[in-house]
Amino acid sequence: MNRSSSELPRIVVIGGGFAGINVAKALKDTAAEIDLIDKRNYHLFQPLLYQVATGELDPANIAAPIRKILWKQKNVHVALGEVTAVDFDQKLVRFDGGELDYDYLVIATGAQQSYFGHDEFREHAPGLKSIDDALEIRRRLFLAFEEAEWEADEEARRKILTFVIVGGGPTGVELAGAIKEVATETLPREFRNIHSGMARVILVDGGPRLVGPMPEDLSARAKKVLEKMGVEIQLNVHVNDVTEAGVVIGDETIQAENVFWAAGVQGQDLAKTFNTEVDRGSRVVVGPDLSVPGHPEVFVVGDAAHATDAKTGKPVPGLAQGAIQTGRFIAEIIKSEIAGNAPQERPQFSYYDKGSMAMIGRGNAIAAVGKVHYGGILGWLSWNVLHVMFLVGYRNRFKVMLDWCWNYVWKTRRSRLITGDPKVHIKKLYSEHQKTDTK
Amino acid sequence: MNRSSSELPRIVVIGGGFAGINVAKALKDTAAEIDLIDKRNYHLFQPLLYQVATGELDPANIAAPIRKILWKQKNVHVALGEVTAVDFDQKLVRFDGGELDYDYLVIATGAQQSYFGHDEFREHAPGLKSIDDALEIRRRLFLAFEEAEWEADEEARRKILTFVIVGGGPTGVELAGAIKEVATETLPREFRNIHSGMARVILVDGGPRLVGPMPEDLSARAKKVLEKMGVEIQLNVHVNDVTEAGVVIGDETIQAENVFWAAGVQGQDLAKTFNTEVDRGSRVVVGPDLSVPGHPEVFVVGDAAHATDAKTGKPVPGLAQGAIQTGRFIAEIIKSEIAGNAPQERPQFSYYDKGSMAMIGRGNAIAAVGKVHYGGILGWLSWNVLHVMFLVGYRNRFKVMLDWCWNYVWKTRRSRLITGDPKVHIKKLYSEHQKTDTK
Repeated sequence: MNRSSSELPRIVVIGGGFAGINVAKALKDTAAEIDLIDKRNYHLFQPLLYQVATGELDPANIAAPIRKILWKQKNVHVALGEVTAVDFDQKLVRFDGGELDYDYLVIATGAQQSYFGHDEFREHAPGLKSIDDALEIRRRLFLAFEEAEWEADEEARRKILTFVIVGGGPTGVELAGAIKEVATETLPREFRNIHSGMARVILVDGGPRLVGPMPEDLSARAKKVLEKMGVEIQLNVHVNDVTEAGVVIGDETIQAENVFWAAGVQGQDLAKTFNTEVDRGSRVVVGPDLSVPGHPEVFVVGDAAHATDAKTGKPVPGLAQGAIQTGRFIAEIIKSEIAGNAPQERPQFSYYDKGSMAMIGRGNAIAAVGKVHYGGILGWLSWNVLHVMFLVGYRNRFKVMLDWCWNYVWKTRRSRLITGDPKVHIKKLYSEHQKTDTK
Repeated sequence: MNRSSSELPRIVVIGGGFAGINVAKALKDTAAEIDLIDKRNYHLFQPLLYQVATGELDPANIAAPIRKILWKQKNVHVALGEVTAVDFDQKLVRFDGGELDYDYLVIATGAQQSYFGHDEFREHAPGLKSIDDALEIRRRLFLAFEEAEWEADEEARRKILTFVIVGGGPTGVELAGAIKEVATETLPREFRNIHSGMARVILVDGGPRLVGPMPEDLSARAKKVLEKMGVEIQLNVHVNDVTEAGVVIGDETIQAENVFWAAGVQGQDLAKTFNTEVDRGSRVVVGPDLSVPGHPEVFVVGDAAHATDAKTGKPVPGLAQGAIQTGRFIAEIIKSEIAGNAPQERPQFSYYDKGSMAMIGRGNAIAAVGKVHYGGILGWLSWNVLHVMFLVGYRNRFKVMLDWCWNYVWKTRRSRLITGDPKVHIKKLYSEHQKTDTK
C-alpha cells in the first residue's frame, strides 16, 4: 500500500456520504494526513435517488466522484475499499486492501435498508439506498408496463400493474407519487393496451400517518394530495409477508408483482463488531461530543450514529442536515485539538433544525420550516431550489434543472433504459404468460 | 397476446436500431399493421458508445426509448422480446412471448461482437456493442486506476495500467484515444500516486494500417496523431490468446490487466437457423432488392445483411448510413407494393457514400467526404456536429453538446461511477495485492 510516512496526525474517515465529505472538507487547512475510504468511488445525493428509480434523472447527475470533490485538498487521500474491521484498542482500520492506523477515526458509514429482521423480503421488495438499488427498481417498474402490454388476461394484468410501496416516510411518499405520475401521465400514450387508470399504486405504513416526523397538518395534506392523484393509502397496517404473489397484510394478500421497500433504515453490520453499545438499528450510541464512550479519538457521525441533541434530548434525525452538522461539529473538535487550542472540555452537539420537506407530485410538495408549514406550488418551488443547491457540481445542477423543466412541460421520463442482460428480464417477462397467450 | 385483428397487411420488423427504426418511420402513412420487436426497450446510438465507456457521456444521452420515438405513429406496435425462431414457409416469427404472423418480414437484428471463433477471449476482453458492454469497460477502466493507486509493486502497477485495445477500426481508434486522454489529462491530478505518463495504451491490429476502410492518407494521419498522444500502435500482428496475464501476440505476451475488444462484428446467431445462405460472419446473403432468395416478402437490412451495391459490386459497409439507407430502400418497396403501384420489377439497392469519419482525440478527427480528405480541428468540428445531429431528441443533443464543451474546457470526465456490487469489484481490486501490501 502506498501511504505517505509523514509524522502528521492521521485521521481516517470511513464513508464518503454527506457526513464523511463534510468532515474532510472542514479539515481543509488542518495539518493532518486524512484517509477517506469508501466502498464506492462516488458521493451520492440520496434525496434524489427516487428520481433515478422512476426514470427522471440519470445516475451520474446525482453522484459525483469522491476524488473529484476533494482533488484540490492536498491533505486528503481517497481510497476505494470496504472496511472489514476496526480495532479501537490498537487504533487500526482493516479493509480488503490492508490496514490503516489512526490518531482520530471518523465512522460515517451511513445506513442500509432495514427489513426489520425479515431479510427474506428483500428479493421481492428491493429497497432504495444505492444507485444499483435505483436501477433495479427502474428495471422492474418499466418492465412491468412492457409485460402488461402483452398480457391478455385481465386479472394477470391487474397484478402486474399493482405497485405496493411499503413505508410512508418521505422516500415512500415521493416514490409513490412519482410512480403514479409515470403510470398516468408518461406511459399510457406510448402503449396501445394500457390506459392511465390501469396502474394501482398502494402506499402502506405501520403508523397512524404519513411522513411521521413532519407536523401533523402536513401529513394530512400529503395524504389528501396523494389520494387525489389516485394513490391508495393504507395506514396502521402490518406487513406480515412479501412473496411472489404480493404483500400479505394481516391475513389478506394484495396481489402485486412489484413491491418496493422504503420502510426503514439501520446502521451497517460492521457496527455490531465494534466493542461498544449499538441500538436496535445497529447505530452506534455516542456521547454528547459524538465520540464513542471510552474512546475520545473515535467519532461516529451521520446515519451511523445514535446521537442525542444535548439541548432538547431528542434524537438527531437521519437527514442530510443531521449528517452535515454532525460531520462539521466533530471536525471542529479535531481541528482545535490538533492546533492545540481546544477548550478544557469538549462542546456538546446540538442539532439546528433547518426544516424538512417532501415532494408529493407535479407542482406539489410539503415543507416545514420552524413553525411555518406550507405546501402546494410554493413548497414545490422551494423543494426544487433546495435540492438543486445541494447537488455537487454546477453541471449537475444545470442538467437536473433542465431535466425537471423538460419533464414538467412534456410529462416525459427520458432515463428509463431497461439495462442488464435481456435474456434474464425477457425470460421473466414472458415465462408466466405462455398460457394466456391466445394471439 | 394482445394484437389488433384488423385485415391490414402485417409487417414484422425485428430490431430497433438504425435500420429497423428507419423502416418503421418510412412506413408512417402506409395502411399496415407494423410490429417492431426488440430485446431492449431503447434505440442505441452506437457511434457514441465509446464515450459512455470512457466516462464522457451518460447512457441515457445516447439512447432513446423505442416507444418514445414511435409513439405518435399509430400503425406501429412496439414489443419487448427476443426472437427465437423465424419460419419463412409458415410466415411466422416466434419469440418468448408467442408468435407473430406476417405478410412482410424485415430482419434488422444488427451485429454482435465477433471473437473470430475464440469466444473464450470474451471474459478477459469485453467488447463494445451495448450499453451494458460500455458500463463493463467503464467499470474496468476506472477500477484499474483505483487499484494502481494502492499498488506498491512497480511491475504489478505497470500491468494494471496497461490497456490493450484489439482492433484498429474506428471504434478501436476512438477508444484508444479516449482512454489515453483519461489517463493523461483527467485522472492524474485526482490521484496521489499516479502521474500522467504511467498508463500505457496499446492499439493492435492484424492489418497493415488503422481505420482500414478509410483512405490511406487518413490512416497515416490517425497513426501519427495517436502516436503523438502516446498511444503505442502495433500493426500486422496476430492475437493468439487473451488471458488473465494479458495479450499473446506471436509468442510474446503483453502484460496487461485490461484488454478491450474492438476487432470485428458478425451477425446474430439467429441467422444461422434461417433456411438460407449466410456468410462467414453470419450475415444473411440477400439479392439486389435486399430480399432473401426465394422469399421476396423477407428483407434483411443493416448490419444483419450481406448486401452488395448493385452499381459498384462492392459490399454495403456496416455503418449507420448503410443501415439507414437499406432500411429506407426496402420500406419504399413495401409501401409501393401495398399501395398497388409497384413497378413490374423491384429496384436494386445502391449505396450512396456520404463519407466516413473517426474521432482521434482532443481537437482532432479524420474525415473523408468523396475525394476530400481532411482532419485536425476541422475534422473534429464536423465529427461533433454530425454526431449531435444524428442523436434522437433535442434534449439529448443539447446535453451531449454541453458535456462535450465542459469536458473539453475542464478536461474532466464526470460520468465515471463504478456501479455494480462493491463486494465483487473490491474483492477483485485487493485480492491480488495482499502480498505486496507493506504499508
